[in-house]
Amino acid sequence: MKRLSAQDQLAQDKAALLQFLQDFLATQEKSVQRYTWGAEIFQGLTAYATQGKMIRGCLLLLSYRLFGGDQKYVPLHAAAALELTHSGLLIHDDMIDRDEKRRGQPAFHIQLTQRSQEMGYIEADHHGQSIALCAGDITFFLSFELLSQLKSEDLLVRQLMQLFAREFTQVGFAETQDIHQGLTTKQITEDDIFSMYKYKTGRYTFSLPLSAGALLASQPVSVQGQLGTLGETLGLIFQLKDDELGLFGTEAEIGKVAGSDVREGKKTLYYLYSLELATSEDRERLKRLFGKRDITDDELEQVRTLVISSGTKAKVDQKIKQLQDKAQAQIGALPLSDTARTELLALMQKLGQRRA
Amino acid sequence: MKRLSAQDQLAQDKAALLQFLQDFLATQEKSVQRYTWGAEIFQGLTAYATQGKMIRGCLLLLSYRLFGGDQKYVPLHAAAALELTHSGLLIHDDMIDRDEKRRGQPAFHIQLTQRSQEMGYIEADHHGQSIALCAGDITFFLSFELLSQLKSEDLLVRQLMQLFAREFTQVGFAETQDIHQGLTTKQITEDDIFSMYKYKTGRYTFSLPLSAGALLASQPVSVQGQLGTLGETLGLIFQLKDDELGLFGTEAEIGKVAGSDVREGKKTLYYLYSLELATSEDRERLKRLFGKRDITDDELEQVRTLVISSGTKAKVDQKIKQLQDKAQAQIGALPLSDTARTELLALMQKLGQRRA
Repeated sequence: MKRLSAQDQLAQDKAALLQFLQDFLATQEKSVQRYTWGAEIFQGLTAYATQGKMIRGCLLLLSYRLFGGDQKYVPLHAAAALELTHSGLLIHDDMIDRDEKRRGQPAFHIQLTQRSQEMGYIEADHHGQSIALCAGDITFFLSFELLSQLKSEDLLVRQLMQLFAREFTQVGFAETQDIHQGLTTKQITEDDIFSMYKYKTGRYTFSLPLSAGALLASQPVSVQGQLGTLGETLGLIFQLKDDELGLFGTEAEIGKVAGSDVREGKKTLYYLYSLELATSEDRERLKRLFGKRDITDDELEQVRTLVISSGTKAKVDQKIKQLQDKAQAQIGALPLSDTARTELLALMQKLGQRRA
Repeated sequence: MKRLSAQDQLAQDKAALLQFLQDFLATQEKSVQRYTWGAEIFQGLTAYATQGKMIRGCLLLLSYRLFGGDQKYVPLHAAAALELTHSGLLIHDDMIDRDEKRRGQPAFHIQLTQRSQEMGYIEADHHGQSIALCAGDITFFLSFELLSQLKSEDLLVRQLMQLFAREFTQVGFAETQDIHQGLTTKQITEDDIFSMYKYKTGRYTFSLPLSAGALLASQPVSVQGQLGTLGETLGLIFQLKDDELGLFGTEAEIGKVAGSDVREGKKTLYYLYSLELATSEDRERLKRLFGKRDITDDELEQVRTLVISSGTKAKVDQKIKQLQDKAQAQIGALPLSDTARTELLALMQKLGQRRA
């Protein structure tokens, strides 16, 4: 059989996952026809869940294959469950962050508010937000429904459900940490930021998909553990790049309003290092701009310039380089074929170079 | 062995469940010490989850025993999972309904807002609400963690998780229906109300616990189905009594602000029938009072008087009587011992007479 390039394989995985999710949600939709908002929520969730990059789902499929798994539907169930819960977390996250855009579209609660206005509800804003809150909750339960249908040994299904439940509990707490760091008046340290990235992005976006794929491919617990640690490193790389894109990327590139981290006063390494490295005059200017809700494009550009001139960007780039070296060693220690190892290394390199 | 009275058994079940939940949450708390709000959320959830009446958890334990189950920890895992998810749903529900009290205490998001104020957060209100939203999500994942730990056959655990996932998905949609009915400008019918009660309260508070208990006691799917239907009837009885208490009960009896259904403009049978049966003058008065956010105690008393004088209360009481007859027949058809049947009948009678 001809081997696909990594990029073609990814495109194929994404298409299969998209189709699987659409089919699952279409089937489930039948069970909620009695509810006024049943069909609307399902259609909204289908559009929402399948608009994303599906990084987590595709990583699970990749990991499953790298560790020798050869079934089609078994990993798709788990990958779709991951993407569904992810959609629900994003819906809640946008409500928490008061973000109005996501994936280039109005955020889910904004979409529902608009629909509620069109339909003439009393307090359409509160109605839309409330339905969105429930829709988020529903995705979590649908994900476990999906896992419970997985055609594999019962023990494996139980272990997978436990892995999901355990890691998602941690994601929930990491989200509270994110909220805390955004609104606390206390000083945030570099350790705080690294710890949050490790546990929020790292374990969730990388450790969980990689471990779940390996579990389904019948890898021992020790390998799942190694992948958990590797995932933390990859998550740090990914998140530092994400912060870079959030600061320097355009709305077209990142699919959400540019500079929202600056507007929200999010405590990133860019925030921390630039306050540390800037001249005292620039520091005062930065302090006024970070967290400024009505920041202008010009002011955002000032932040960008100061981040570069202070040497902050170079310092973060250096961190990313160190993390890539660490990930390389961690990948080297995994029981993988040469081809599989090369593929994983390429993925890691790509994380440090992505533009969107 | 001496048989306990139903009341003593209930007290014993509730105590065991409370202890089990406390122990589980205390163990889990260790895994979130790195998060600023980890301990606080766990302590809050423990207090919150164990302050309730634990109707659902106790019903699951009762059903398990009535169908011959004789293990202690197996049903406790499932009952605790039910109570935990219930806590999460209540947390979100209070945010949706903007209720400030629950179980005689400030609602969970209000507690967290107060703590956030004390701790000097920027936008303490938004901070408290956001943490509460996450805490709700976390309970769902913790519930599945609990189920995944259940010491029983893997197949049974998978089936139980599926039952939970499926029924909770429906609960989520029923909640959206509740929101819709509260804020729509369209006419609500008697069918709408009954359908919502059946699917929201009935399946969730009764069908799910009764079916889960029977499943764990190895009853066939057909019996689980019968219990599902019985649960819908019991739910209607329970909800009609709940509406009665919401209207006529005092804050001390019901543990939340009296008359909140009237204030929220909730479409109950009392609302519907009283508008139908009142004289045209009284109807106008009722229309002004239902949904009045700043309703006074005097005005609330006027609503109560009109509900009685119009014959609305008598009509709802009659409905409850009919539902009790129906439940009696459904209980009669279950494969139960005479003692077990008597116990279930007594429970049903109690639902129609409860004062809190």
